[in-house]
Amino acid sequence: MELSEALPLGELAAAFAALPVFPLFDTAYFIVSVLYLKYEPGAVEMSRKSPFASWLCAMLHCFGSYILAGLLLGEAPLEHFSHNSSVVLATAVWYLIFFCPMNLFYKCVSFLPVKLVFVAMKEVVRVRKIAAGVHHAHHLYHHGWFVMMATGWVKGSGVALMSNFEQLLRGVWKPETNELLHMSFPTKASLYGTVLFTLQQTHWLPISEANLIFFFTMFMIVCKVFMTATHSHASPFAPLENLVCPVLFGSVSSGHPGHHHDHHGASHEVSHPPPPPAKSKEELNEGTRKRKAKKAE
Amino acid sequence: MELSEALPLGELAAAFAALPVFPLFDTAYFIVSVLYLKYEPGAVEMSRKSPFASWLCAMLHCFGSYILAGLLLGEAPLEHFSHNSSVVLATAVWYLIFFCPMNLFYKCVSFLPVKLVFVAMKEVVRVRKIAAGVHHAHHLYHHGWFVMMATGWVKGSGVALMSNFEQLLRGVWKPETNELLHMSFPTKASLYGTVLFTLQQTHWLPISEANLIFFFTMFMIVCKVFMTATHSHASPFAPLENLVCPVLFGSVSSGHPGHHHDHHGASHEVSHPPPPPAKSKEELNEGTRKRKAKKAE
Amino acid sequence: MELSEALPLGELAAAFAALPVFPLFDTAYFIVSVLYLKYEPGAVEMSRKSPFASWLCAMLHCFGSYILAGLLLGEAPLEHFSHNSSVVLATAVWYLIFFCPMNLFYKCVSFLPVKLVFVAMKEVVRVRKIAAGVHHAHHLYHHGWFVMMATGWVKGSGVALMSNFEQLLRGVWKPETNELLHMSFPTKASLYGTVLFTLQQTHWLPISEANLIFFFTMFMIVCKVFMTATHSHASPFAPLENLVCPVLFGSVSSGHPGHHHDHHGASHEVSHPPPPPAKSKEELNEGTRKRKAKKAE
Repeated sequence: MELSEALPLGELAAAFAALPVFPLFDTAYFIVSVLYLKYEPGAVEMSRKSPFASWLCAMLHCFGSYILAGLLLGEAPLEHFSHNSSVVLATAVWYLIFFCPMNLFYKCVSFLPVKLVFVAMKEVVRVRKIAAGVHHAHHLYHHGWFVMMATGWVKGSGVALMSNFEQLLRGVWKPETNELLHMSFPTKASLYGTVLFTLQQTHWLPISEANLIFFFTMFMIVCKVFMTATHSHASPFAPLENLVCPVLFGSVSSGHPGHHHDHHGASHEVSHPPPPPAKSKEELNEGTRKRKAKKAE
Repeated sequence: MELSEALPLGELAAAFAALPVFPLFDTAYFIVSVLYLKYEPGAVEMSRKSPFASWLCAMLHCFGSYILAGLLLGEAPLEHFSHNSSVVLATAVWYLIFFCPMNLFYKCVSFLPVKLVFVAMKEVVRVRKIAAGVHHAHHLYHHGWFVMMATGWVKGSGVALMSNFEQLLRGVWKPETNELLHMSFPTKASLYGTVLFTLQQTHWLPISEANLIFFFTMFMIVCKVFMTATHSHASPFAPLENLVCPVLFGSVSSGHPGHHHDHHGASHEVSHPPPPPAKSKEELNEGTRKRKAKKAE
Repeated sequence: MELSEALPLGELAAAFAALPVFPLFDTAYFIVSVLYLKYEPGAVEMSRKSPFASWLCAMLHCFGSYILAGLLLGEAPLEHFSHNSSVVLATAVWYLIFFCPMNLFYKCVSFLPVKLVFVAMKEVVRVRKIAAGVHHAHHLYHHGWFVMMATGWVKGSGVALMSNFEQLLRGVWKPETNELLHMSFPTKASLYGTVLFTLQQTHWLPISEANLIFFFTMFMIVCKVFMTATHSHASPFAPLENLVCPVLFGSVSSGHPGHHHDHHGASHEVSHPPPPPAKSKEELNEGTRKRKAKKAE
């Protein structure tokens, strides 16, 4: 819907949605992703001892979204790796961040004001990927709502959704938690975003794709820049979830502090899963009785 | 082959094979699958703390067969999720079983006589899936016997064959066992069934597909209903296996009690792997010597 | 390039590259692969207790390269299993090695001179697979260098690259190491080989495919036969790596003794990861500071 007074905004949104992400925004995406890989315990040692494995981890961080989307849709997970310039660019970022003499490149990109710019640019790419994922799935399955939402979601979340296996590649194994049990902010935001984009694609949300990309990107930029700058733990979704979840699911969902960092496996290693909510005595007895019955079957 | 006195049976089998599984039989399949998910330790807590992860587990239990078959054949694992009505139905079953006020729905469906009906209906769906899997693989690989058998098998076994990873999604990790090392009854029955359906598809078994579906379904219904009702541990395959395995493999296969429940990962957590059979002194020495040699290589 | 005095060599290479690998060379490949499976701790017990799981492991060892290549390219991982004769041959090899009366077959094939012949024949198949993988990926992605290299690599390395999951199938789980962190000789050689074949395919390496196959196969045969015969640990790549890696990556790569055996998961269980190289005090402080910052985000 374009009202006459919204025309400039509509044009701005259209221009924004048409911005090419390669190479500038993609570079920012790669920088922030590999930065977070470097923060992982043992990542620097791994880059010295097993540089190839380190490079592979970096590629998972940079292109995990394409790999997962390819897997879900039965297409080649490696399809995006046929874009040689992207892979070479990501490789260069990885090399500079891990091996630049005197750590010069790393110091430059992790200088907070610079980093905040890159974080903002990464969110531009994230939202574009969600939109592209939903669009691509819609092309394959015109009425496959769940397929569209799943594709957009993995495009937005990227490597976070395979964090257990990315950690396994580094020789780390933490099965007690995963991104689905304890969602970080980007993963949760990607989930909500993919629902919005799917509703828009199927014409249930009366907004143009360009406008939705623009507004959702602005939302993501504001949240992520604020959270990165202030080291804040607060999730912007918490108020809404604390309203809805007790009604729907009889309890508060796990939207507790400690899960509002970018989608990196290690971020979960410092959070402690909250204590289980008290079950009614009936549920406990029932569960035990049924488990015994099931074992016997 | 239809003899004049088998015509009514042939017509019955044909009508039976043509019964639409959606929505009634599929609903029963979903109910039994999600019931068994609820029995898993920690599943109820997970539904309260991480409802999305709980929903995803339920979807794996309901549609795991389609996901695995898609993975094996290079097709989209999510292809079946484009059937929105199926997914919505499975979601409704999950919600009612986990969140119905006063657990009303759960109490109704787990009332034994009602549950036995659902168990029987689930077997109808299982056998149909095996037949459909073999048929689909035959369409892609006319002479790919092993592909046909593998596809039918994963369609019949479903989530059981990925139990380690379904457990990982719930934050549980038990690598010491899996459905292939210690097969539950439904998985083993699906394996035998897929062999029969492959032989039928390639015209080595002189029986029509409808008749085979009918008879194999009756066999599965009788076994599963009996085992569910009596909490029996006995496998109907044990007599045959105890005859064949010592001849072929020099030892009794692991068909011991405790593995005749439905294909759920947790069912294996209470079974203790049997003590290893005694190896000949020669084999032990040889193994050690060869391992040392291999390490050196 | 064919100089008049190299014509005989060119013809020899062409004839060599045209040699059919099925059934003789494939049989040797299966024999060596299943031999190494038998060396794994617990493999013989598993074959007695869970023969089906043992057979599946053997199929992973024999056809793992095709499964991985299919997964990466979005094709059916099971596609090669439609070649019934291959699967039957591999099954026969597995059965004879594990269940032949008095272990006769095993004793014959593991007699060192005989085994060396099979090891040499296996390398013929390995190099052919690398070439075929690169060729096939080139056909799908004319300029996808990284896709070509990845496909050739997984075709050459085979089951080693999924060693963690092949071990999981046997009920073993060793997440602290994997083939990418600590590459065995065949995996590393396959990696270098796939780079050469990709350069050849894209006309950057001025050599015919037949010549490259011939020379690389000779190199692999000499190395593997020498290493198998002498139980040597020395990697032929170590001199070159010790020259290049400190320059590129600031440290010696993990080319230490103990990693020059064939691609079998168990071979890694006896290697101890080398102690981490000393980090500069600055890097240690920085890492800690950044991890704290990231946790807060």
